[in-house]
Amino acid sequence: MNTILVVGSVALDTVKTFSGASHDALGGSATFFSLAARHFAPVQLVGVVGSDFPREHRVLLSERGIDLSGLKIAKGKTFRWSGRYGKDASVAKTLATHLNVFKDFSPKLDEAHRKAPVVFLANIDPALQAEVLAQMKAPALVAADTMNFWIKSKPQAIKELLAKVDIFFCNEDEAEELAERPNPLQAAEVIASWGPSVVVVKKGEHGALMKIGSRFYIFPPFPLADIKDPTGAGDTFAGGFLGYLASTGVYDDVDHLKRAMAYGSVLASFNVEDFSTKNIEDLDREGIDERFHDFVDRMSVPRSDELLKSRKAALA
Amino acid sequence: MNTILVVGSVALDTVKTFSGASHDALGGSATFFSLAARHFAPVQLVGVVGSDFPREHRVLLSERGIDLSGLKIAKGKTFRWSGRYGKDASVAKTLATHLNVFKDFSPKLDEAHRKAPVVFLANIDPALQAEVLAQMKAPALVAADTMNFWIKSKPQAIKELLAKVDIFFCNEDEAEELAERPNPLQAAEVIASWGPSVVVVKKGEHGALMKIGSRFYIFPPFPLADIKDPTGAGDTFAGGFLGYLASTGVYDDVDHLKRAMAYGSVLASFNVEDFSTKNIEDLDREGIDERFHDFVDRMSVPRSDELLKSRKAALA
Repeated sequence: MNTILVVGSVALDTVKTFSGASHDALGGSATFFSLAARHFAPVQLVGVVGSDFPREHRVLLSERGIDLSGLKIAKGKTFRWSGRYGKDASVAKTLATHLNVFKDFSPKLDEAHRKAPVVFLANIDPALQAEVLAQMKAPALVAADTMNFWIKSKPQAIKELLAKVDIFFCNEDEAEELAERPNPLQAAEVIASWGPSVVVVKKGEHGALMKIGSRFYIFPPFPLADIKDPTGAGDTFAGGFLGYLASTGVYDDVDHLKRAMAYGSVLASFNVEDFSTKNIEDLDREGIDERFHDFVDRMSVPRSDELLKSRKAALA
Repeated sequence: MNTILVVGSVALDTVKTFSGASHDALGGSATFFSLAARHFAPVQLVGVVGSDFPREHRVLLSERGIDLSGLKIAKGKTFRWSGRYGKDASVAKTLATHLNVFKDFSPKLDEAHRKAPVVFLANIDPALQAEVLAQMKAPALVAADTMNFWIKSKPQAIKELLAKVDIFFCNEDEAEELAERPNPLQAAEVIASWGPSVVVVKKGEHGALMKIGSRFYIFPPFPLADIKDPTGAGDTFAGGFLGYLASTGVYDDVDHLKRAMAYGSVLASFNVEDFSTKNIEDLDREGIDERFHDFVDRMSVPRSDELLKSRKAALA
């Protein structure tokens, strides 16, 4: 079991979607990531909250085995984000961002954190992501995410970071903007040229694609007729993906990475079925695996005897 | 080998896309469908063209084994469509539609056509689709497509037709409009309640989904970094899908239907790589199967030994 260190936001979210609303609910990239990844591997969360952060949230995360020794409590208010989703569930309109204590966030890792073999640099200032990485003791796997805000304000810092990243996650529109390319496949190509051996482009309700070497793997989403709140889908995706990989200790094998994509899709699908972290707080591995197998079964296209022969002929 | 009868348009298209343009090029739903389906089963095309329809197009279709005995030549001009695609390849903006000889199209099937075991009612007036169907002698498989224009003008006629259709194809936005539902899964649910045992919702560059009974199967698109012209993608999809099914004679088995989805995706992917019918005119079955196997391999998620055990436990 390889421990995962995640550095990112722990937030209070106010969200309005097509099917309801939530106010000051538990959120933040590190929160969603941890709640997904903890089913597969030990998780250490590094972040900061204000003195107003509800004790029950800390208890919730801690009771689920997430190591909070790196979650600092600073004087002031917790980071708050508020957003709205229209019919297109894949695009959030940010209504307000109050960084609060997050503004002065400058993570200092202690000895236990620096040794983590897997690190996920969730969506924070790329300069901070680089600072965290510089404190790590030769992690076996470095993964990172980012967002539009940093792509617009600090594209060069992201590119520099990417030279040290193995697996990079980002949304479709972010990938296209960062790479200045008109579609996610071309964008992933450019991003891969900057460093990451694996690029994962999340397409929201349309699934996700993964580039490994010169080859693309496109995954559909797990089919859901009702989505309540897409907030955190990308981070639960990364949590399922990296959690699974960390549990195997194999980071560069296509089949392992495909299974990671499937686990990412499954965790994200659970997350969007309710507001905030409600639907992922009490998942268990059995329920996750059940949906994993269902998802993989739906995607599989069994070859007929005739097609098995045609495949054999093609390979010969 | 079960013969497929297709009734639809044969047109001259003028198209502008992000990567170029074509003028009065071979197009039409029955054309694209036939060029895809002919690799799998005999195809009879029923339609109408004007006296201006270039002889070379007729020769092209005929040389590829498509039975044109039902393609009438009427006095007047061939049906013309002109459209434009923006960055979002899945949405065509219609610039002009000149029905011309298609306006008075009222297909009378002759004896050979009426006996076809498989019929595809491509995108024409639903009243005409029903008229064609009424002339058929108990086909084993009835499939149909439609488009926004008919959904807006004749929704009731479409619903009545659907009671007699086994497999219905439509685009995502069309499905949502027809069913008055906000997402393709809910829309497919409603449409299935009107009759078709299989509903296929095409999502353009995002792939396609299929509903069989209460279960959804979502397929990614074949990954392409360059799309030149999406015109005809839906019809080549239907052609690959129904062509494969017709070749097997099995119309209600999930694995056969999944392979049909994969063949549909593959034919559509070839089609969009060039303008008009250019890239599908000279395909051969070997090249199609090669991409089919590649597509199925990319989608497959091989289970590890551990996951095979967890699956066994879940099924026990």
